[in-house]
Amino acid sequence: MTVADQLRSLIRTIPDFPKPGIQFRDITTLLLDPAGLRLATDSMAAAIAGPIDLVAGIEARGFVFAPTLALALNAGVLLIRKDGKLPGATIAEDYALEYGTDRIMMHADALTPGARVLLVDDLIATGGTARAAVRLIRKAGGVVTQAAFVIDLPELGGGDALRGDDIEVHSLVAFEGH
Amino acid sequence: MTVADQLRSLIRTIPDFPKPGIQFRDITTLLLDPAGLRLATDSMAAAIAGPIDLVAGIEARGFVFAPTLALALNAGVLLIRKDGKLPGATIAEDYALEYGTDRIMMHADALTPGARVLLVDDLIATGGTARAAVRLIRKAGGVVTQAAFVIDLPELGGGDALRGDDIEVHSLVAFEGH
Repeated sequence: MTVADQLRSLIRTIPDFPKPGIQFRDITTLLLDPAGLRLATDSMAAAIAGPIDLVAGIEARGFVFAPTLALALNAGVLLIRKDGKLPGATIAEDYALEYGTDRIMMHADALTPGARVLLVDDLIATGGTARAAVRLIRKAGGVVTQAAFVIDLPELGGGDALRGDDIEVHSLVAFEGH
Repeated sequence: MTVADQLRSLIRTIPDFPKPGIQFRDITTLLLDPAGLRLATDSMAAAIAGPIDLVAGIEARGFVFAPTLALALNAGVLLIRKDGKLPGATIAEDYALEYGTDRIMMHADALTPGARVLLVDDLIATGGTARAAVRLIRKAGGVVTQAAFVIDLPELGGGDALRGDDIEVHSLVAFEGH
């Protein structure tokens, strides 16, 4: 069985969450499995061209694999959080939702200009949040050329959009549909 | 320098966050440091009496150390989330805030009764969230007897309250005040 098939067998699909028509790909069942957690971490780490200084995780599920990848790559963790959660001085980036906009933030002093940053999240769909994170890291002076995801939903175009932003996109499992 | 002093030197204090009079102990500076991330993980793992089946992390900052500890202890990760975030059938537990209540959830099928669960969060203050997480895990049939935190604020009494719930409490750094 391929790595993708092993991981796919550990990811559960929940229909109609968070709203009707969405097939939610649920990684919590993968996380409950010690071998699955290790396989996902090791497989993402093996795909990354180093060295990496910081692994940026997007709140909240991105916080799960950013630290395991950081340990594997001997890097630190950069937390990218929702509005109002970080205690220090921040920089922010907005991105479009289906209705309205949302905002992510990082500490303004979190990285030294030129720091090599890997972006991590559990899933890439339309890529709106990931692309905003790339803009945010670049605004802070970070160099981000790679992103890693457990799951890609290629029909939603996020991977292609990130590649258009000069990001090499690594994902472990692709699912069809939304 | 002791482990506690090394970690303390990497934790930043931000006054008056999230409100006037609170000294916020900010672990984001610790996480940015690869050696600090590793030291915190290894030190918590070394304090735990095994075996552990699942490491439960409380959203959102608890998601950072739950997976690194899980890898160190060869366990899986159990996500304890805020209301409305988990896609499957859930069980919930409420806890008191200064004004009103809040709610945490886990998937109802996340653990096998008798599973040995370690609770992890970045910080223990009054212990309201941690104690609710213990009740939630026990309601699901999990056996939780240990909890690990990077930071303890002992004056706020959360550690003592957890010990009253028959939890062995491990923390790496204590800070005075709130």
